[in-house]
Amino acid sequence: MKENLSNLKKSARELYLLNRTQAVVSWDQETQMPDAANEERAEQLALLEGIMHQKLTSPEVGRLLSALGAEEGRPEGKGDFAVEDKAFVREMYRNYSRASKLPESLVTEMARQTGLAHTSWVNARKNADFSLFEGNLEKIIELNREKADKIGYKEHPYDALLDEYEPYMTASQVEGVFGPLGEKLSDLTARIAASKQVDTSFIEKKYPVELQDKFGRSVIDKMGFPMDRGRLDISAHPFTTNLGTNDVRITTRYDEELVLSGLFSNIHESGHALYELGIGENIQGNILAEGVSLGIHESQSRFWENVIGRSKPFWEVFYPEFQKLFGEQTKGVGLDDFHKAVNKVAPSFIRVEADEVTYSLHVILRFEIEKAMLSGDIKVSSLPDEWNRRMKDLLGIVPADDAEGVLQDVHWAAGLIGYFPTYALGNLYAAQFSNSMKSGIGDLDDVIRTGKFGKILGWLRENIHQYGMVYPADELCRRVTGENLNPDYFTDYLEKKYGEIYGLRGN
Amino acid sequence: MKENLSNLKKSARELYLLNRTQAVVSWDQETQMPDAANEERAEQLALLEGIMHQKLTSPEVGRLLSALGAEEGRPEGKGDFAVEDKAFVREMYRNYSRASKLPESLVTEMARQTGLAHTSWVNARKNADFSLFEGNLEKIIELNREKADKIGYKEHPYDALLDEYEPYMTASQVEGVFGPLGEKLSDLTARIAASKQVDTSFIEKKYPVELQDKFGRSVIDKMGFPMDRGRLDISAHPFTTNLGTNDVRITTRYDEELVLSGLFSNIHESGHALYELGIGENIQGNILAEGVSLGIHESQSRFWENVIGRSKPFWEVFYPEFQKLFGEQTKGVGLDDFHKAVNKVAPSFIRVEADEVTYSLHVILRFEIEKAMLSGDIKVSSLPDEWNRRMKDLLGIVPADDAEGVLQDVHWAAGLIGYFPTYALGNLYAAQFSNSMKSGIGDLDDVIRTGKFGKILGWLRENIHQYGMVYPADELCRRVTGENLNPDYFTDYLEKKYGEIYGLRGN
Repeated sequence: MKENLSNLKKSARELYLLNRTQAVVSWDQETQMPDAANEERAEQLALLEGIMHQKLTSPEVGRLLSALGAEEGRPEGKGDFAVEDKAFVREMYRNYSRASKLPESLVTEMARQTGLAHTSWVNARKNADFSLFEGNLEKIIELNREKADKIGYKEHPYDALLDEYEPYMTASQVEGVFGPLGEKLSDLTARIAASKQVDTSFIEKKYPVELQDKFGRSVIDKMGFPMDRGRLDISAHPFTTNLGTNDVRITTRYDEELVLSGLFSNIHESGHALYELGIGENIQGNILAEGVSLGIHESQSRFWENVIGRSKPFWEVFYPEFQKLFGEQTKGVGLDDFHKAVNKVAPSFIRVEADEVTYSLHVILRFEIEKAMLSGDIKVSSLPDEWNRRMKDLLGIVPADDAEGVLQDVHWAAGLIGYFPTYALGNLYAAQFSNSMKSGIGDLDDVIRTGKFGKILGWLRENIHQYGMVYPADELCRRVTGENLNPDYFTDYLEKKYGEIYGLRGN
Repeated sequence: MKENLSNLKKSARELYLLNRTQAVVSWDQETQMPDAANEERAEQLALLEGIMHQKLTSPEVGRLLSALGAEEGRPEGKGDFAVEDKAFVREMYRNYSRASKLPESLVTEMARQTGLAHTSWVNARKNADFSLFEGNLEKIIELNREKADKIGYKEHPYDALLDEYEPYMTASQVEGVFGPLGEKLSDLTARIAASKQVDTSFIEKKYPVELQDKFGRSVIDKMGFPMDRGRLDISAHPFTTNLGTNDVRITTRYDEELVLSGLFSNIHESGHALYELGIGENIQGNILAEGVSLGIHESQSRFWENVIGRSKPFWEVFYPEFQKLFGEQTKGVGLDDFHKAVNKVAPSFIRVEADEVTYSLHVILRFEIEKAMLSGDIKVSSLPDEWNRRMKDLLGIVPADDAEGVLQDVHWAAGLIGYFPTYALGNLYAAQFSNSMKSGIGDLDDVIRTGKFGKILGWLRENIHQYGMVYPADELCRRVTGENLNPDYFTDYLEKKYGEIYGLRGN
């Protein structure tokens, strides 16, 4: 048993190293590489992917897993191992069995179709004409259905896809959470819309990019982002990537006219990075050394971005420095007004620009549509109508065209079905975790007000980060909060915060 | 035959892509990565190396090569192929057979010993005490002798090692060239030392780094370095690396007090890069798509650095811009004096700081010592004495300690024996090529004086760059110049140039 485990760890170490190599190569592609090199770079990445697939699904890995007793229903095997070793076998089995079930022909066809779909999606969005993308999307849904069939599921094909991003969670669990959440958020959004609006004119002024960068770096430094174990660079779309135990990098983008966008990207991505940088030494350098699910990962980024970064005490600390850098732009704007502007809520069409209250409604809409497309309950051809109808239901607005409606996101063109829910799950986990944090470190606002975030980061490390993938998300949630995922923490948090900001009745 | 060739090309394509991936990962390590990530990054690189070795020495590659008729004495096989396909088989055979002959145990032991040696070398150099490095160097020489035995050679074990960096060249060929070269250079150096010295005080002033970068970028832009197919970054030691057909990057370093060092690094590395960027379309993306030997590679960098960059007409073009940027530092310094300062010659201890005349003497010394160590003619323990004696003979000076003597270079600690000669070969090829250039583009000085380098780059592309590894270095030399490597072109060039600068008799 011990020897099989140690041999399996050797194979896993190679997978780990190749995965980090891929991260280096991709990071370079997004931040440094001349555009002209793109085609060959894509080939480099595909080759690495192929080598990893081959190593993961090798007969040797299969033999070791089976010798360790890992099988359907008992993925952790039957070895009498420490908790992190059991988790290691479980995750290797999960990866191995998912990868082994997918025939190479399906993987290749998916790569081919998403290549074609990306081009047609870009074109369709540019022309605001869904019909130009429809055929390709149909193919992608078909292939995803086939993928789900190959992987297998108990209740709904969606489960097999969701499992890739939010392991061990099912569509019905998501539904159980999203149902009540959607109703409460729609209601809160409507009440806010009916109240007195906040002034945001001063944050729409021009803010020099160099000063934005200076301020942004000072904020993430105070959060605890270690520049000797990572970097901050510029890319077209902000992201976080793990290139090694001591090399986790974030990217951002600055726009002179969007000062908050760059800043909150920095904070958001730092939240992701701190998670990966906080992995415990006992699991560093192996396949458990990453976030356990995209939902939990997103909880870390959104906790820092929203719960911390958009809070009043945060700006009590940072607004003086902000005003010093941007005196002209903020002339005559008090802390209260600034904090309100940072938290403006309004129904809007584009998910990535949505505020903290309406954001999850965009996700719920996508989840429902994905699930119905996959089960065949709605046809791809009726997607624009379905989209617009649901926008009206959930947010009370209807997009003028497909570009600001059904065509806005890249995910489906990239073949990603089952990914969207993790964004909203992140909001829910973040609120539930920060509620539990109180008993550990006392009133969160008081801690933020000190301008020292070590206590907060320490709590996150101790309760969440160090475990990486050791505990599945649901188990982690129970360990940290004593209960299953419960959307009430999020809606309670929003009611309190926005009740104050918008002066809603009953607050 | 055709099918075997096409299958071999498929394998080679993977090797090509992995090689470029390795380049991405190494470039990042040198220019972007936080230091703390070094250990894990080294593991990533070792794993890639292992995967490449496995692919190169796979039974399938062996089978294809043998089916193509490639064997000792007929490395190009017996297929009736185009010249670049024959070259492709030849180089695959060469790589395959070198890699197959080395047992894994030897490769691992070499990696282990060079790891240890690097540490002891750093320590020995710091303490200027060769005895701290002696034992490790003995091991490395022993392993290199074993390596040479495994690979095989006709005349001297040195041949097997030299072949890695300067394929198909032998130690006796190098000797035939270095012998007369050494005598002539020692003589010229002595005559220069006895003449009136040039003033370099103004280039020892402080030159702001940002302006150095501005000027350096403007120079390599005019040389034809395409920023849309490459990059210029900062690293501890300047280097050029090929990350893909359209992604060749150079690095430099600037020091406020060493204005010429940064500038000539830029020019030197651009020379290397332009070679790799000029590979012909017919061999792009396969293993022939790089410089044919380190000597030829170095000829390109030194041609641009020395023949062009340290020429009078070059500074006729660029000195006005230089003066505009650095008015204070160059106040009262005329073009003639500046050009002389750029070409100051004096015997010195450190190879990498040596001038165009004395540089090759440093190389000749190292070549002789390496060869004698390998054959056992001199003992490692007597190295400091041997070194100092030869310095006296060749350059007329004796280092004060081992740090500025035998311990100055990293190469031996890194296991590189047989590498040094390529630096001097570069000088020789550069002079011989530029002599041939005349018949193609007319008087070189006249072309430089126009400030337009397209004609020069075009000639290099047409005659050298496009061929990559298609023609071995000696054949390439004959094709370009009509004769074998002949050191007289280099010494004639130096006599003429430095005769004028130093007002030597007979000039």
